[in-house]
Amino acid sequence: MELVDQALSGNRRALARLISQVENDGSLAAQTLAAIFARTGRARVVGVTGSPGTGKSTLVSELAKAYRGTGQTVGIVAVDPTSPFTGGAILGDRIRMRDLAGDPGVFIRSMATRGSLGGLARATADVVQILDATGYDIIFVETVGAGQSEVDIARTADTTIVVEAPGLGDEVQAIKAGILEIADVLVVNKADREGATNTVRALQAMLDLGAAPRAISHHGVSMSVPTQNGQHRDSALTELAWRPPILQTVALESKGIAKVIEAIAHHQAYLTESGEAQTRHRERIKSELEGILRETLLRHLMASLSSSDLNRMVERIAARELDPYTAAETLLAPRP
Amino acid sequence: MELVDQALSGNRRALARLISQVENDGSLAAQTLAAIFARTGRARVVGVTGSPGTGKSTLVSELAKAYRGTGQTVGIVAVDPTSPFTGGAILGDRIRMRDLAGDPGVFIRSMATRGSLGGLARATADVVQILDATGYDIIFVETVGAGQSEVDIARTADTTIVVEAPGLGDEVQAIKAGILEIADVLVVNKADREGATNTVRALQAMLDLGAAPRAISHHGVSMSVPTQNGQHRDSALTELAWRPPILQTVALESKGIAKVIEAIAHHQAYLTESGEAQTRHRERIKSELEGILRETLLRHLMASLSSSDLNRMVERIAARELDPYTAAETLLAPRP
Repeated sequence: MELVDQALSGNRRALARLISQVENDGSLAAQTLAAIFARTGRARVVGVTGSPGTGKSTLVSELAKAYRGTGQTVGIVAVDPTSPFTGGAILGDRIRMRDLAGDPGVFIRSMATRGSLGGLARATADVVQILDATGYDIIFVETVGAGQSEVDIARTADTTIVVEAPGLGDEVQAIKAGILEIADVLVVNKADREGATNTVRALQAMLDLGAAPRAISHHGVSMSVPTQNGQHRDSALTELAWRPPILQTVALESKGIAKVIEAIAHHQAYLTESGEAQTRHRERIKSELEGILRETLLRHLMASLSSSDLNRMVERIAARELDPYTAAETLLAPRP
Repeated sequence: MELVDQALSGNRRALARLISQVENDGSLAAQTLAAIFARTGRARVVGVTGSPGTGKSTLVSELAKAYRGTGQTVGIVAVDPTSPFTGGAILGDRIRMRDLAGDPGVFIRSMATRGSLGGLARATADVVQILDATGYDIIFVETVGAGQSEVDIARTADTTIVVEAPGLGDEVQAIKAGILEIADVLVVNKADREGATNTVRALQAMLDLGAAPRAISHHGVSMSVPTQNGQHRDSALTELAWRPPILQTVALESKGIAKVIEAIAHHQAYLTESGEAQTRHRERIKSELEGILRETLLRHLMASLSSSDLNRMVERIAARELDPYTAAETLLAPRP
C-alpha cells in the first residue's frame, strides 16, 4: 500500500491514481478503505444537488474559493449523470473549475456514472473517505438532483444544499416537492433573473406546507443536550426542528456566497447540538455496511458458480421454463 | 394466490393491489413473479426518458391514445424521481393522463422512488412483468433521464425513446451526450418552439460524432439472419447498425405522433431481424438474476444475524475501531 502512503502524505498524483484504482477495482477498494479508515471522520461533507441549468457547479466553485480564503482545504467530487456506456463525457461546467485546479489546497474529481446501480454511490462514498483521510477540510459532493442514485449520494453528506434557479419550467417546480425533503439549505441561484422572488416564494410555500422537517423527533421539543465539550445546556438550536433557510445567490458574480457558508456552519452546529449528527452517522454506516455485504455476497457466489451453470440458467429463463426467482433459489441451494 | 388469478383475469382493482404488494414486499414479489412468469414475454416495452420540462408525459399520453386507436392495450409505468422519504408526490403531468384513466384498455401506475438504491429498478421491472402477464400489448416506462437508476430502468425496455425540447439550456445539452447512447429513437418535442431546428441539428451532429451505435457488432456487416418465420434473407435493416431517427413532435397538439409509432415499429423489426432482441433479452435476464441474488443473499444473511450483533458492529465502526470492509468480512466469516 505504498500508493496509500504517498497519497496520504500529500502527493496529488498518487491520490488521483489511488482514487482510480478504488473506482475500478472492488477488492482494492476494500484494502484501501481498511488502510485509511482510522484517519477518516474529520472532514465536513456538503452535498450540492439541483436540476441541470441551476448553476450548481459555479456555486460550488465559489464556495470552494471562499473556504480557501479562510485557509481551509477543499475536495470536490462531481458526479456526472452522463455516459453510462463509455464512462466518459464531462460536463462543460467542469471547465469553469479549472482556475481552482491550480490551487494545491483544492482537489477536484469527476465521477462518471457507469457500471451497475449502486456502484456509483459506493464509489462516491469511497472517494469521499479517501479525501477525508488525506486531510481535506471540506468535501463537496455535487450531483444532478433528479434520480434515486443522486438522492442516495446526497444522503451521505452532513449538509445537503439544494440549488434552484428561476424560470426552469413547471415540471421542475413539481420535482422540488420531493427534493425539498433532503434539503438542509436551499439556494436560489441566478437570483438576478426575472422570477427569482417567485421561486423564493414558491419554496417558502412548500416549506410551510410542511414538507416534514428532517429531525422530526425533535420537533417542538426543548431539550438539554451535551455539547461537544460535554457540558449540558438548553440550546435554542434544538428547540425546533431544523428549517432550511432559503438564500439567494448570483454565483457567476460571487454574490451571496458568504451567507451560504454561514448557513452551512449553522447547520453543522445544529447537527452536533441536536444529536442528529450521531443518528445520521450510524444510519450511514449501516447502509454502507449493507452495500458492502450485498456486493461481497454476490461476488462470493459468482466465484463459486461455473459460467456454464449460470448460462444454462439464463437459457432456461429465456425459454420461460423457469422464473428468475426460482432460478435464484436453485443457484443458492446448497449443492450435495 | 387468488389475487394473482383475479388480476390476470382482468380485475383492475386486484391488479392495482397486486402491484402494491409486490412493490412493498420482496418475498411476495418472488411468489407472484414465479406464478405469472410463464405468461410473460408478449408485451413490447417502450422506455421514454428525458429531462424535466421536455413534455414526455404528454408525449406518452398521446402515444397511448394512438395505440388505443388501433385496438391495442397500453400499460404506463411512470417513475417519479420525487419524494424518497415520504414516497409521495406525483408530478403535475400525471393529472393530464386522467382522460386516459377512464379507458379500460389503459392501466397507469406511478412509482415513487423510495427505499434503497436498486429497489426502484427492481420494482419497476416487476410491475412491467405483471402488466405483461395481464396482457397489455404495449408497456411504457417513463423516467426522468438524468440519473443512473433511470438509465438502468431504460435498459429494461425493448425500445428507448429519448425526449428533448428546444431551449432548456446548455447543461442539458451536455447531458444529452450521455443519454444519447441509450436512445433508439430521438424525439424533439415542443417542436413549434423557437430553437427546435437547432436542437435537431445538435442531436444530428452528436450522432455523427459517433456516439457508438448500440449494435456495434453488426456495424457495416451485411448478414443473413433468420426471420421470425425461420426463413433466411439478406435484410437491409441489418446491413448497418441502427441509427436513431430524430423526430419532431408537438405532443400537446397531437402532432407528429404517427411518425413516432412508426419508428417504434421499425426499431422492433430491427431488433428481431438483427438478433439484437435475443442478445438484449439475455443481458436483461442476467442482470435481473444478479439483482435477485444480491437481495436474497443479503436477506438470508440479515436473518441469520442478531440485531445486537449488527448494532455492535455499527458502534465499532462509528468509534473507528473497525473499517466497514473488515466489519463485513467478520460478519461473513463462518461462525464456529
